[in-house]
Amino acid sequence: MRASQFFIATQKEAPQEAELPSHRLMLRAGLIKRLGSGLYTWMPLGLRVLRKVETVVRDEMNKAGALELLMPAVQPAELWQETGRWDVFGPQMLKITDRHERSFCFGPTHEEVITDLARREIKSYKQLPLNFYQIQTKFRDEIRPRFGVMRAREFVMKDAYSFHTSLESLEATYASMYQAYSNVFNRLGLKFRAVRADTGAIGGDGSHEFHVLADSGEDALAYCPASDYAANVELAEALPPAAPRDAAQETLREVDTPKQTACEDVAALLGISVTRTVKAIALMVAHGEGQSRFVLALLRGDHSLNEIKLAKQPGFADFRFATEEEIRAHLNCPPGFIGPVGVSAEVSVIADHTVAAMSDFVCGANKPKFHLAGVNFGRDLPEPSLVADIRNVINGDPSPDGKGVLELCRGIEVGHIFQLRTKYAEAMNATYQAENGELKIMEMGCYGIGVSRIVGAAIEQGNDARGIIFPAAMAPFSVAIAPIGMDRSDAVKDAALALYAELQQAGIDVLLDDRGERPGVMFADLELIGIPHRVVIGDRGLKEGQVEYQARTDEQAQSVALSEIVSKLKQALA
Amino acid sequence: MRASQFFIATQKEAPQEAELPSHRLMLRAGLIKRLGSGLYTWMPLGLRVLRKVETVVRDEMNKAGALELLMPAVQPAELWQETGRWDVFGPQMLKITDRHERSFCFGPTHEEVITDLARREIKSYKQLPLNFYQIQTKFRDEIRPRFGVMRAREFVMKDAYSFHTSLESLEATYASMYQAYSNVFNRLGLKFRAVRADTGAIGGDGSHEFHVLADSGEDALAYCPASDYAANVELAEALPPAAPRDAAQETLREVDTPKQTACEDVAALLGISVTRTVKAIALMVAHGEGQSRFVLALLRGDHSLNEIKLAKQPGFADFRFATEEEIRAHLNCPPGFIGPVGVSAEVSVIADHTVAAMSDFVCGANKPKFHLAGVNFGRDLPEPSLVADIRNVINGDPSPDGKGVLELCRGIEVGHIFQLRTKYAEAMNATYQAENGELKIMEMGCYGIGVSRIVGAAIEQGNDARGIIFPAAMAPFSVAIAPIGMDRSDAVKDAALALYAELQQAGIDVLLDDRGERPGVMFADLELIGIPHRVVIGDRGLKEGQVEYQARTDEQAQSVALSEIVSKLKQALA
Repeated sequence: MRASQFFIATQKEAPQEAELPSHRLMLRAGLIKRLGSGLYTWMPLGLRVLRKVETVVRDEMNKAGALELLMPAVQPAELWQETGRWDVFGPQMLKITDRHERSFCFGPTHEEVITDLARREIKSYKQLPLNFYQIQTKFRDEIRPRFGVMRAREFVMKDAYSFHTSLESLEATYASMYQAYSNVFNRLGLKFRAVRADTGAIGGDGSHEFHVLADSGEDALAYCPASDYAANVELAEALPPAAPRDAAQETLREVDTPKQTACEDVAALLGISVTRTVKAIALMVAHGEGQSRFVLALLRGDHSLNEIKLAKQPGFADFRFATEEEIRAHLNCPPGFIGPVGVSAEVSVIADHTVAAMSDFVCGANKPKFHLAGVNFGRDLPEPSLVADIRNVINGDPSPDGKGVLELCRGIEVGHIFQLRTKYAEAMNATYQAENGELKIMEMGCYGIGVSRIVGAAIEQGNDARGIIFPAAMAPFSVAIAPIGMDRSDAVKDAALALYAELQQAGIDVLLDDRGERPGVMFADLELIGIPHRVVIGDRGLKEGQVEYQARTDEQAQSVALSEIVSKLKQALA
Repeated sequence: MRASQFFIATQKEAPQEAELPSHRLMLRAGLIKRLGSGLYTWMPLGLRVLRKVETVVRDEMNKAGALELLMPAVQPAELWQETGRWDVFGPQMLKITDRHERSFCFGPTHEEVITDLARREIKSYKQLPLNFYQIQTKFRDEIRPRFGVMRAREFVMKDAYSFHTSLESLEATYASMYQAYSNVFNRLGLKFRAVRADTGAIGGDGSHEFHVLADSGEDALAYCPASDYAANVELAEALPPAAPRDAAQETLREVDTPKQTACEDVAALLGISVTRTVKAIALMVAHGEGQSRFVLALLRGDHSLNEIKLAKQPGFADFRFATEEEIRAHLNCPPGFIGPVGVSAEVSVIADHTVAAMSDFVCGANKPKFHLAGVNFGRDLPEPSLVADIRNVINGDPSPDGKGVLELCRGIEVGHIFQLRTKYAEAMNATYQAENGELKIMEMGCYGIGVSRIVGAAIEQGNDARGIIFPAAMAPFSVAIAPIGMDRSDAVKDAALALYAELQQAGIDVLLDDRGERPGVMFADLELIGIPHRVVIGDRGLKEGQVEYQARTDEQAQSVALSEIVSKLKQALA
């Protein structure tokens, strides 16, 4: 492509509301333009990137035997009413009323539509398994769209849905989707991690998220470098301490903590490790008929509460943090100094495994400006009524598979695979005739990739002060030719055009920057938009038969013989 | 593709509401499945066809220098309010309210969005001309969706928009789009015609429609075999008769027409040609402040009114047909016997050119059960107050370019190109800085192709009693291999698998029907879905080293040596 016949619309500044590097860089590089809140036009340059992602996704889905189809974006409400999701999906669903006053939505996902298709079209076990997918524009009416294409309202998604006669068959397709997803992210040149994800009410080991690793990622991930264990921190198990609780050695005493409310500050004041402190988190836990009870959840001072784990404990499905008033009412003490010692019998205490194994610890005294030290279960307070894993894992925790210790990193979720089992098929009565003639409910899986999100995630992972660093497979062009003074020098023009023609001939995606911009502008643009390889052609070098080559990740350009540049580029792209 | 790993969902019957062959056949062949009124899922088989059309469209647009982008489907109301189309587009526009109570629509077209983009991004004449396109799902809330994908509510469209500094530049891009569209339909193997189209209020020669020819087409087209003249009948000019009006020869007389109200019946009763009769069409024509006048429009008995032409006559912009009551009130006569003779001065008479040149004609007598014969303008009634071209052309009319006579055919509109000029750019203030520094309004063109509609139109053009006849470029598979008794005969299985591998190797899109269906079912399916070439492999033929080859358009199969079938297929596909 000649840049003069293309449309490159870079800009110096990104709007202030762009918080993340990828959002700023996509706007500055002119990959996208904002139409409205959470609505972006993919410009020719950006669409090239999006299409490259799509192509890899499609190819791997086809290789895995999935069949592409295309369902309507606009979906009748009736199907969503069958599964009950019309009411529970919430305001993220963009509801629409047509001219005949019938209700529809702009599909945020397609479980209902595909299950309706399956129950109509799949009659017999002989037709199964089947795995259908589509690459399609979806809409979710985010309350606060942000991060550009990473949390846009309108976005491009690959969604696949598989149907089976048995869990074994579902597991086989699930495994092949796991492999296909890994292939996709490997081929796209992204550092990623597949992690076990929370499966909510469905349970089991039936869900993995695929995360592109980036410090700016919204999700915290735990993985074990010594094994293949990896999980979203939401889910990663914190093992109980291996060693039993030590016997009490200290006596219980009050300590003055006039201004210290946080465990770190109390520990610093007392000159002890924060790992010897315990924090109490006050909760109101619902238990039927509008009633709720006051609960203290105990965590080690440096640990944090995992709300998802807590909600899975018996009786804790519906909890919230207590207000200051509720805390004062139950403990007669302001927050910051509360603790589990001496509380009334109506206050139940749940302790994390780590806390349950502690002795001689420090906690709030339920008395303003005081903490207690030398606290011991059994002696100073009863054993907790429930001991459970309710905390987030931290760096150095033992891996749940027993093979080493966990490390944490951050990721951006770009894929999610899920064993749905019979949830939708049952609600919509999607049955098939089994070999023995019986009508049976289908087993079902679903598999999503955020196609447009991948572009943003890749830029979060690959960028520097000069702009985007695209992996080769995603770059809008693989090579840029930057001729200096093409309009003044026939030698430069001839060399540039000849190289352009030769690279095109070789099937290489090449951009010839023939816009006639000054070298500084040209280089800045080409670096900003992240083209992996650049060849600068100038009169001075040409006299020596040389051009300048620089990879986007190189600090400096190097001289290369014009006669060797094509083979060098081919090698670099191989 | 192996049919056993694909999803072929043919069915014997199509639902009754499917009126057109293409709709019935697409449902029966399982190319599409209905989700709701005007909403269809493109099944894997149908999507292959749709994608082939898309690929050709994309390729020709790229070759013509257009740049692909992707705008949001969901568009803010504010842009449509700027052009005034938010209110005038009517109920075809699917309006949407988001969670913040802001108004949007599901884009039925994208003039507003692209013009907004252009006014933000195009600063200088140096950036022009530019031609952007997208291939995208659109929505029009048709009051009565029908004909399957031909008039669906959700559909796939290629829409392009070009921007220019001058009319000359617009005309050049318009011409290149005309050529690109012709290339698209030629490559797709469709019989088509580009015709001049009505440009409505904009006027000029700035619009062409592209029609796929089919007897079931909704549009009547007029073309001249002796020249390149072609126009939608809506627009095709009917030249005034070359010869002047003959002098009156007959006397005016009443004739008994007890039951004859239609011109054909009156002519038959009188033993004259229908071309000697005149019909009067009663109209109510609005002329300001809720007032309207009663008008008789006169057409030759075998001609039909062209409402678009009539509406272009001065004072006729807003007319409707008169009710029976209005006719009785103004003429004291029921419909069927009305005419222009002896009407009051308040009744104005507009005559088509052909009628104005007639003498001694027959028309209604304004008296039940009677007509008048030997009627002559000037003698029996005043000359018409307006003489104009208000009729549809018919077979044999002289071509407006003076080069022969017109023929009529029917077509399905699948493309439309349009010189918009400054209509949208002016309304939205889309300006650029001209070479002299002045801000000027951009010239603009738009160019649409109904991508999903093409699939339906191709099937209207190509089908027979056995099913779909796809042109090679659009067929879901180019070749089908139909092995007979593959599960019983190793020879058949080996030959089928070897041929399958060899054709795949050659890059040919081949379907191996390994479903194990009976030959009758297999052949019927392969014919129904319109695969252009079929190879039947059976034990009997193999003993002689023969297979059976049949093109979809052949009446009979022919024996071909197994050793020659690949070269024969390559030849057929070349």
